[in-house]
Amino acid sequence: MHAKVQDGAADPFDFATRVTPENGRWIGHVSDDYRAFVGPFGGVTAATMLRALLDHPERAGDPLAFTVNFCAPIGTGPFDLDLRLIKANRSSQHWSVELTQGNDDVLAFATAVFALRRSTWSHQPAGLPDTPSYEQTPVFGSAGAAPWIRQFEFRFVESTPKFGGAPHDAPASAHTKVWIGNRVPRKIDAVSLAAIADAFFARIFHVRGEIVPFGTMSMTTYFHADAADLAAEDSTAVLGVADAKIFHKSYADQTGELWSAGGRLLASTHQIAYFKV
Amino acid sequence: MHAKVQDGAADPFDFATRVTPENGRWIGHVSDDYRAFVGPFGGVTAATMLRALLDHPERAGDPLAFTVNFCAPIGTGPFDLDLRLIKANRSSQHWSVELTQGNDDVLAFATAVFALRRSTWSHQPAGLPDTPSYEQTPVFGSAGAAPWIRQFEFRFVESTPKFGGAPHDAPASAHTKVWIGNRVPRKIDAVSLAAIADAFFARIFHVRGEIVPFGTMSMTTYFHADAADLAAEDSTAVLGVADAKIFHKSYADQTGELWSAGGRLLASTHQIAYFKV
Repeated sequence: MHAKVQDGAADPFDFATRVTPENGRWIGHVSDDYRAFVGPFGGVTAATMLRALLDHPERAGDPLAFTVNFCAPIGTGPFDLDLRLIKANRSSQHWSVELTQGNDDVLAFATAVFALRRSTWSHQPAGLPDTPSYEQTPVFGSAGAAPWIRQFEFRFVESTPKFGGAPHDAPASAHTKVWIGNRVPRKIDAVSLAAIADAFFARIFHVRGEIVPFGTMSMTTYFHADAADLAAEDSTAVLGVADAKIFHKSYADQTGELWSAGGRLLASTHQIAYFKV
Repeated sequence: MHAKVQDGAADPFDFATRVTPENGRWIGHVSDDYRAFVGPFGGVTAATMLRALLDHPERAGDPLAFTVNFCAPIGTGPFDLDLRLIKANRSSQHWSVELTQGNDDVLAFATAVFALRRSTWSHQPAGLPDTPSYEQTPVFGSAGAAPWIRQFEFRFVESTPKFGGAPHDAPASAHTKVWIGNRVPRKIDAVSLAAIADAFFARIFHVRGEIVPFGTMSMTTYFHADAADLAAEDSTAVLGVADAKIFHKSYADQTGELWSAGGRLLASTHQIAYFKV
């Protein structure tokens, strides 16, 4: 969990999510390292949008809620991020981000709430789900998998995927527990949580035991730890717990929790995704 | 469950969520019947935004994902809704809605995904949670409660709130089961689901046994039934199941499920809310 963290400048995740201001917009770059089925892995797109917001000089507070709607496939090369501060008060800010590429077609659209979090009564009804430790859990072999998968290290505690054989005869469980960290260990911050929130394999792959056409339509992540909390955790992987409640008429949900090894719920995440079977 | 449904024109929920097009915008009206602590009940604001989208001549498909960010208190009187079709393809549409009142200050901001849902393999791992039926469950007495609460009929199966006495000595459960319908029975459709999704009492009220300053910051609802599915259900109440995982540094989460009596998951909903204790 506390592996040596690379120098930030050379970290592949930091490189893939880099943004530079230009004429009132921010420029990001699609990374070949994070390719998925069609276009880049949505989690790295989301993380890049969040990073632009975090880097904006007017941003105040920590990310609290972050919703990304994926509107159309993103191509290769650079993309523009148009950031807008919708509303701000003393303790919170509402932002939107539009991602375009070459013309005005919006390919992804995000809204974010930032908040100055003050210490209050804290209560976390549930603790870390039962799990062997990160160190005790074998690394999932991702050789041959899509490039984005190889940028993470998955250690499945439950529902290790087995793709390539016959699909399941009957639906398997949609519930998964998996330790997830970056391939090159990197300290968990809000930007990496935004990416890891989308790193669960599609629930339908687990349930059916086969890869089918799939795409996330909308994803929301709530952050339950601020920058100080995350710095105090000082970890490079989280325990991800994911589940789904329904697959119906081309769409399925997914709920997810990202836990620190110390038993703190760092983020919860929800998405709805298209599938074709 | 199948009580007589009032004529649409006279229904108080339809009246409160009415929208009229005017100069390329839509006009809504804050209803005194749905007052909450500060401004109108967020669920009726959300429902009005969704109804404007549904009424828009360019809208195609059923609501799939709907996120509302509440930016500032909404006053009394009319409000403007500015609808924008961000992106459309053959099977889905992405929209945004801005709510303003009198000036350009955005008071609420929503994004929505609509989809044409095609019949596919369906799978719902979980069924209706254990519950007595709607008819068997006593009606919650809402006399003296905030106006918006009296627009609904709550029938608590579990965690019936008891406000007004001493707060709990130790945190109580955040888990609630409650049948929720409109006071004047009205057939459940996507617009009423958008409102009911925000009708759970704040988790912190249940956990602490007291009313504290509270406000939803961002709420996302996923719809798992299209208009045909909802018409087939033909019901006027849903079983709501809500829970929370964490209360920390001024913010708490809430997850919710809205079930039909027949055991279909109609919608799932998530929010993050401010609290002060």
